[in-house]
Amino acid sequence: MKSYDENLKILKSITPKWELSERVALTNALNRVLADNIIAQVPYPAYPTSAMDGYAIKFDNQNSKIKVINITPAGDDSNISINDGQCVKTLTGALVCDGADTIVPIENVKFDGEHIEIIKKATKGFAIRDVGESYKAQELLLKSRTKLGYCELALLSELGYSYVNVLVAPRVALLSTGSEVLDIGQTKENKSQIYSSNSISISSLLKLMGCEPIIMPIIKDDKKSIQNAVQNAINQADFLITTGGVSVGDFDFMRDIARESQIIIDGASIKPGRHIKVAKINNKFIFALPGFAYSAIVTCVLFFREFINHSFELNLTHQSKAILKEDYIKKSPFEEFSAATLSNDNGVLKISTESKKSGSSAIIGNLAGGAVLLRCPSNKTKLNAGEVVEYIKI
Amino acid sequence: MKSYDENLKILKSITPKWELSERVALTNALNRVLADNIIAQVPYPAYPTSAMDGYAIKFDNQNSKIKVINITPAGDDSNISINDGQCVKTLTGALVCDGADTIVPIENVKFDGEHIEIIKKATKGFAIRDVGESYKAQELLLKSRTKLGYCELALLSELGYSYVNVLVAPRVALLSTGSEVLDIGQTKENKSQIYSSNSISISSLLKLMGCEPIIMPIIKDDKKSIQNAVQNAINQADFLITTGGVSVGDFDFMRDIARESQIIIDGASIKPGRHIKVAKINNKFIFALPGFAYSAIVTCVLFFREFINHSFELNLTHQSKAILKEDYIKKSPFEEFSAATLSNDNGVLKISTESKKSGSSAIIGNLAGGAVLLRCPSNKTKLNAGEVVEYIKI
Repeated sequence: MKSYDENLKILKSITPKWELSERVALTNALNRVLADNIIAQVPYPAYPTSAMDGYAIKFDNQNSKIKVINITPAGDDSNISINDGQCVKTLTGALVCDGADTIVPIENVKFDGEHIEIIKKATKGFAIRDVGESYKAQELLLKSRTKLGYCELALLSELGYSYVNVLVAPRVALLSTGSEVLDIGQTKENKSQIYSSNSISISSLLKLMGCEPIIMPIIKDDKKSIQNAVQNAINQADFLITTGGVSVGDFDFMRDIARESQIIIDGASIKPGRHIKVAKINNKFIFALPGFAYSAIVTCVLFFREFINHSFELNLTHQSKAILKEDYIKKSPFEEFSAATLSNDNGVLKISTESKKSGSSAIIGNLAGGAVLLRCPSNKTKLNAGEVVEYIKI
Repeated sequence: MKSYDENLKILKSITPKWELSERVALTNALNRVLADNIIAQVPYPAYPTSAMDGYAIKFDNQNSKIKVINITPAGDDSNISINDGQCVKTLTGALVCDGADTIVPIENVKFDGEHIEIIKKATKGFAIRDVGESYKAQELLLKSRTKLGYCELALLSELGYSYVNVLVAPRVALLSTGSEVLDIGQTKENKSQIYSSNSISISSLLKLMGCEPIIMPIIKDDKKSIQNAVQNAINQADFLITTGGVSVGDFDFMRDIARESQIIIDGASIKPGRHIKVAKINNKFIFALPGFAYSAIVTCVLFFREFINHSFELNLTHQSKAILKEDYIKKSPFEEFSAATLSNDNGVLKISTESKKSGSSAIIGNLAGGAVLLRCPSNKTKLNAGEVVEYIKI
């Protein structure tokens, strides 16, 4: 079986670029992915602007009394100019009058009703936002494929955007399979039944990744149900994710419905997720993830999230490094991805698996409360306390 | 003027607890805040369950041929039991038959159509998920006031929840004031006008904080417009945020509409955000933030986000520590919160302000691209390279 890195390299080499874009209002653009470069058309500020409430003066006039000839509130565009011995009261955000080169803050002057006397001098250019202080014309401000957080949206609004082009969210069909799996809200009829958690967790994860999940009805483990569900999913979705169900993982039966199919990943030497399969069926990618909630989340993060990020051409990584707090003993011959917690010790990231329950790959509680995945390579039997280790953000 | 920490302490001391809860479907619960403790009613698994596809055997039988008397797929609850020399083929997620204490994985046996012969022995208890492996009955699984990520939702689904009690999102009215401020999509009529970015950025930030923003019409800087807008906001919202507009900041005019008002924060010795004010008017909290996009975001994060987190009783902090990459020279006598970038250097978090533009507090681009806020205390003039410093996540 191939390693995680080998599989990921193969997967990325054939990942299609996702190019579809749509136009959304800025109010709906949070967490969406920008489809174009954003370039400033004009400098900002476009004119010298005051950064404080104060008096716009000539710097050289600070030793004498200065006459206040006008007031410029923000939003005013009267073309005022000053000569020696004159100033204009200028509020925050207002244009600085012609002839002035410095703003003296309001609290640093005495005002007698007509003149100001400067009691604390300003340095030349103080509190004036020069033309282009924020950005110059033709400056590249946001790169295409940037994820839009609230600060990026602030920048877009400032530039005057009310709509923005973002990537369309791919529709991802989620097929939970397993005769033991009950749908949310169904009543248990026998003691072997369990509730589906994958439809909720994976669909929520997909939303965070910028996809639109389509939760399909739970599928029982029989060939006909699975075939119908897959056919239905292929017709409406861009990508398919199945969880559980060895028969889906096998893909054998798929040949009946698929004109063409190609296996891309056929298992990986990792724990959890050894039986992961990725295939292309009728030109649609299908990711067959394990059924246990923990394993499904881990493999979705390791494979599908990387696939989507690569497809979106996002410039972000979920891999990072930390210092291991105590020895980690590997339990399997495979590369392990184990739930762990991070802490910040005076700027040093420490990682620990100590608070996690040990047992099978089905303990979903281990991922709650802000966990990360500690990575232990297949060629090691142990990671040592104090060692720099890799982890994956989830 | 009081320091940030002093102001925050005062603010927290009078922050009301937010107790309102509502019932939402798990599919809509991502990022919501849990209103109750979640306690397991029954252990999980409730019965010994197979973690792999394999054969359920008696551990002591591994040296001889064992007869396969049945198969248990997942979802099957037939009450099968085995005697010496017998086993049951048991698929992943299926109940383990009575009498068996170990699962031998499918790939470790030879099957002749009737019997298995074990070619690689299993340890006692192998691949059996014991009763309560994931959790015991009465175990506290999620604390009230936990923010629900996709892993927490997986746990809730597994427990059989289809609806969950979460905190109601407080309605927060956002009033952008300033005669120079254009609404999104409006056409510039004079060169002093700028586009509002606060309505978009702060409303998006509020959503991430678990609030429901109400974006009010832009208010011009006159007393009557502001009074009407504040009255309107007080009537419909739980909390008010204003940006820009010294007259709002002054609160003087508020006395005309407010039966009772109380100033809680009246400026802070910080940069940006020196003129921040927080007051209580007719029992509603109103946060008057500065108008510049950068300052508005920083003060919203420093004050309103902390207020909401405290009100929600969230057990999370946005303060953390990193190692400063190069000297930081403070420009003001105040405590400074400066845009910075973080990097991970083999597990050590490094913080730097080097890639940021210098200038006024209006450069919103400095916050884009995953910035954090480097904190430099008022009693220091400089932070030294290599020093452990505090930063605020944004």
